[in-house]
Formats: sequence, C-alpha cells, structure tokens
Amino acid sequence: MRCLVTGCAGFIGSNLTDRLLANGHEVVGYDNFSTGRRAFLEHALQSPNFKLVQADLLHEDQLRRAAEGVDLAFHLAANADVRYGAHHPYKDLEQNTIATFQLLEALRGNGVKRLMFASTGSIYGEPNIFPTPEDAPFPIQTSLYGASKLAAEGLIAAYCEAFGFQAYIFRFVSILGERYSHGHVFDFYKQLRQQPGRLRVLGDGTQRKSYLYVEDCIDAVLLAIEKAGDRVNIFNLGVNDYCTVKSSIGWICDYLGLRPDIVYSGGNRGWIGDNPFIFLDTSRISALDWSPKLSIREGVIRTLQYLEQHPWLLEGD
Amino acid sequence: MRCLVTGCAGFIGSNLTDRLLANGHEVVGYDNFSTGRRAFLEHALQSPNFKLVQADLLHEDQLRRAAEGVDLAFHLAANADVRYGAHHPYKDLEQNTIATFQLLEALRGNGVKRLMFASTGSIYGEPNIFPTPEDAPFPIQTSLYGASKLAAEGLIAAYCEAFGFQAYIFRFVSILGERYSHGHVFDFYKQLRQQPGRLRVLGDGTQRKSYLYVEDCIDAVLLAIEKAGDRVNIFNLGVNDYCTVKSSIGWICDYLGLRPDIVYSGGNRGWIGDNPFIFLDTSRISALDWSPKLSIREGVIRTLQYLEQHPWLLEGD
Repeated sequence: MRCLVTGCAGFIGSNLTDRLLANGHEVVGYDNFSTGRRAFLEHALQSPNFKLVQADLLHEDQLRRAAEGVDLAFHLAANADVRYGAHHPYKDLEQNTIATFQLLEALRGNGVKRLMFASTGSIYGEPNIFPTPEDAPFPIQTSLYGASKLAAEGLIAAYCEAFGFQAYIFRFVSILGERYSHGHVFDFYKQLRQQPGRLRVLGDGTQRKSYLYVEDCIDAVLLAIEKAGDRVNIFNLGVNDYCTVKSSIGWICDYLGLRPDIVYSGGNRGWIGDNPFIFLDTSRISALDWSPKLSIREGVIRTLQYLEQHPWLLEGD
Repeated sequence: MRCLVTGCAGFIGSNLTDRLLANGHEVVGYDNFSTGRRAFLEHALQSPNFKLVQADLLHEDQLRRAAEGVDLAFHLAANADVRYGAHHPYKDLEQNTIATFQLLEALRGNGVKRLMFASTGSIYGEPNIFPTPEDAPFPIQTSLYGASKLAAEGLIAAYCEAFGFQAYIFRFVSILGERYSHGHVFDFYKQLRQQPGRLRVLGDGTQRKSYLYVEDCIDAVLLAIEKAGDRVNIFNLGVNDYCTVKSSIGWICDYLGLRPDIVYSGGNRGWIGDNPFIFLDTSRISALDWSPKLSIREGVIRTLQYLEQHPWLLEGD
C-alpha cells in the first residue's frame, strides 16, 4: 500500500512512518519541518520505500503531486500547540482547518478517497459525561485548537458524503513515548534537569488527564483501518484510566530520585482553554479487540527514559 | 445601541436591520452585495440611523472600521447556497468559516464582545432524535455548508472562552417570509409562473422539513439576546411542527389554483447533503416565552403573497 503521511517528521507521524515501512508499505512523508525534526526520520530515510517531501500543506502544487497514486492518507500535520491558541488565533485555523481542506482537495484531485485524521479529545470541550463517548452531547468548544480540529472533522465528514471518501477519525488523549517533544512530562523533566530543587506547575495540580503510549496509539489506528468499514469511522483513543498532574509529578520525581519544591501557578486550569478533566470512553476501539499495553505510569516512565537518552531534544527554548 | 449587521442586504439581514432601526437602534449594515439586494434596504437607507458599508468580510481594514464603537454584532452574512457545496467546496469554507474568523478578529480589535450568529439546523447532520435538541449526540456532518457553519460556531465559542466574548448562536430551520429569495417555495413558484402545467421537484417529495416565518425568527433572536445571560447561548429556532415537500406543494398549488403534473427526480434527498428530515426541538427558546405567530402553511402563503407582489425577484437565472 502507498501511504501519504503528513507531519511525518513529528512525534506521532515519525513513529507511524517507521511502523508503516516496517509493515512493508511505501510511504510518502510530507513535512514543513516547522516543528518536525529530521532526526526522527533517521530510520525512514534509510528505506528505499520512503520518499520525503519538504513542503507546507498550503503549497497546493507540491501537495497535489505528493498525493499522486496514494491509497491511504494519514493526516497528522497540525499546529499541536494547544496552549497558545489565544496568542495567535489564525494559526490553528490556518494549520489545522485550512490545511486539512487543502489536503482534502489534493486527495480529491488524485482520486484518493481513504483518509486517517488525528483529531483530539479537546473537541469535547468541557463535557459532563465521563468517560466521554464519541456520541457525547453536542459539545461547546473551549479552545481555538479544539475548534480548529472540530472544523477539520466536519470538513472530512462532508467530503465523505459529497465525494465518497472513507474516513478514520481518531480523537486522541495526550500521547506519550519515544520522540515525545512537548507536553507536561517534557516541561517537567526539562525544568528538573536545569533546576532539580524546584518545579513550577501550571494550575493547581488537580487537573485530571489521560495519556496513551504512542505505540499503543499506532496499534489502534492500524487495527481500526483494517477492521472498521463505515464511511465515517470515529474512535476515541486513550487508556481506561486517568491521573492527576500531582500523581504524574510523583512518578517523575520518584523515577529521577528528586524531591523538588513544587510551585503551583494556581487555578484548576493550566491555561486558557485547558480542560481540567479529560477521560475518554474507549469501548468502541476496545470492541475491535484492542487494548493498550502500557499504563499511564508506564508511558510516563518510558517517556522519561527516552528523554534521558536524547538530551538534545531539551535544548532550545 | 449601535449594531453591526453583516449580510444586511440579505433576506433575514434586511428584515433584522429594519426591525433594529424601528426599535430605535443605530445600524451599521455590511454587505458585499454578492447575493444581497439594494432594494431590500429601501427603508433602511431612508433612516439617519443607518450607515451602509459595501465591502466583503475578507476586507480586513473596512471590516475593522465598520466594527468601531459597536455594542453588538449580528453576523448573518454567509454563503447560504446549501445545495451547491460539492460544486465549489472552498466557497463555504471561505465565506462562512474564514469570514467569521475575520469578523471575530475585527470585533476583538475594537473591544466588541457581544455577537449574534446565524447558524443552521444543518449542523445536526442526519440526527436520530426528533425533534432534535441543542445537546443532541455529537453530529456527523453531511454537507459542506453544515461543516462550515459548525466550524464558525466552534470559533465563536472558543473566542468566548479565550477573549471573554458573549455569543448568541441560533440554529435555524429554513426561514420564510418577506424578501425570501431562494429555497423551495421560490423555486416552485418561479417554475409554475413560467410553466403552470408542470412542476419538477428534487427528491421524491417525502422529505420532511420545518420552516419558520422571518418575523417570528427575529422576535426570537431579540428576545434571547435580551433574556439569556450565559457566555455561549445556543438556541434552535423553528416551529413545533414539520411538513413534507408534497404537502407544501399542495398548499402552493391550492393558493395559485393550479393542478400541475409533478415530476419527481427521485430518491429521498433533493441533493448531496440534503437532509430528508429536519425538525428541531424548540423548547429552550419557548421557555423564554416565545412562540411563533405563523404556522408553516401560513408562512408559505405569506411568502407566495410577497413573491406575487415582487415579481422582479424571480427574474434572472
């Protein structure tokens, strides 16, 4: 199978690219390297089945050419900067919504009709039902990031109806594991490495979140594409559990053997649009006989081990 | 109060503009006249409290200036061409989603924080619950029009969270009445005027739809803005009833005294993304002590009377 992977040099995209290549598929990787890293493609670039296109999704001609002859497109490119939506409101719209539209048009122009999309549990806003199922009550958006992903989901579903596309939409919790390079474990580890005696934490530490290990995530994505046959297939991906930021800090400090002073910024939200409780109902994907291999704690530890082995990731601002 | 009305020369926008002026408010009307008609502003243009800006929502500078000193923005400008989304997919994205973003930015730049938005019952896709409440299960989009309006709703809600906006979002059924200039009553009347013996109908006539009279719609909008005080206020607007396309044809033919041959195109959808059953739960707006004055049948007749008196509307393609 010939696959297009947008965001191929990102955290999840590069792991997915490696897996697809290992499974014998051809991969056209597409990345503008705005946040992607060439080092993440070190394995892929050694494969004769991998072709890298360095370009932006807004470059119509290059995208159109990259989609030629593709059987299935995996759309992972995104502004994943959940926290800073209010600082540059156009960025989410452009990089998540408009870029998705451009991809859909490039696929349509090439007769490519199968698409996987990396969405987010953030589109549930602040739900009232936990764990939150895929058919939760119609949500009210609380972040520009969530709004931009919801808009992309809507476009994709409309293309399924209008143009006969088949879509696999995955609403992720936060993902952890190898090549993880932003989020709370990253921030905390980076802080503690610089200043082992003090840890500054956004919010009051009571936020409850769910995390999934990246290889478990990829297992679920590939399984769903193999087994689910609706026109629009939507799956929550997460573990059947959650943890508080405080517990996660405990695991991190235990692992590192540190006892820092912890300074909370206060409030039950880490930033504007932060959701104090994310816990997704994963019974739909579980019914396909999937279950995660790592617990949240194990995912956090695996991530720390990876960061310890790749200290260059912590450099820069 | 100083109001900005986008789409002021459109069907609903011009009726709203007249009402706001009659209620003693100042109105800055904004329209690019792509589908709006100057004749609909005939009353408004006589008022010293009305100022017309002829410009597109994508013209940032003009929009920014138009929003200066405004207390409340009514956002009705849109591509309302529900049927043709698949013919030009970018149009809905640009005119409904990106244009809404531009308006939000213009409002934010001027410190304007109250906004009314004309959304649509189409964002429920093909729901399983009738009448469909505002908190129906998370919908799957079936039209580019619905997807573009859902995206706009999401952006607006995210601006409420990020920037302290207060929003009034109304999900309309189809609206009928004075200045109605597209939709099934318009199409059928226009056909019968040209060829009284034959009527071509999209679909099989069994589609069930709900309609609301424009003055009832405006009553509901103004009442909700007066009485509802949440940050994000979402209301379905419709009547507590629906009709089949066949019944509506019956009312139209009875009124005109015609007995045409009716030729159905077949299928239970009029076009790609058409929803065969639209019936919204209006108990939320009804709880504010609103009820529509006209039934669907009365709205259809009122519309026919208006079209008979304004035959120039039927000219053109």
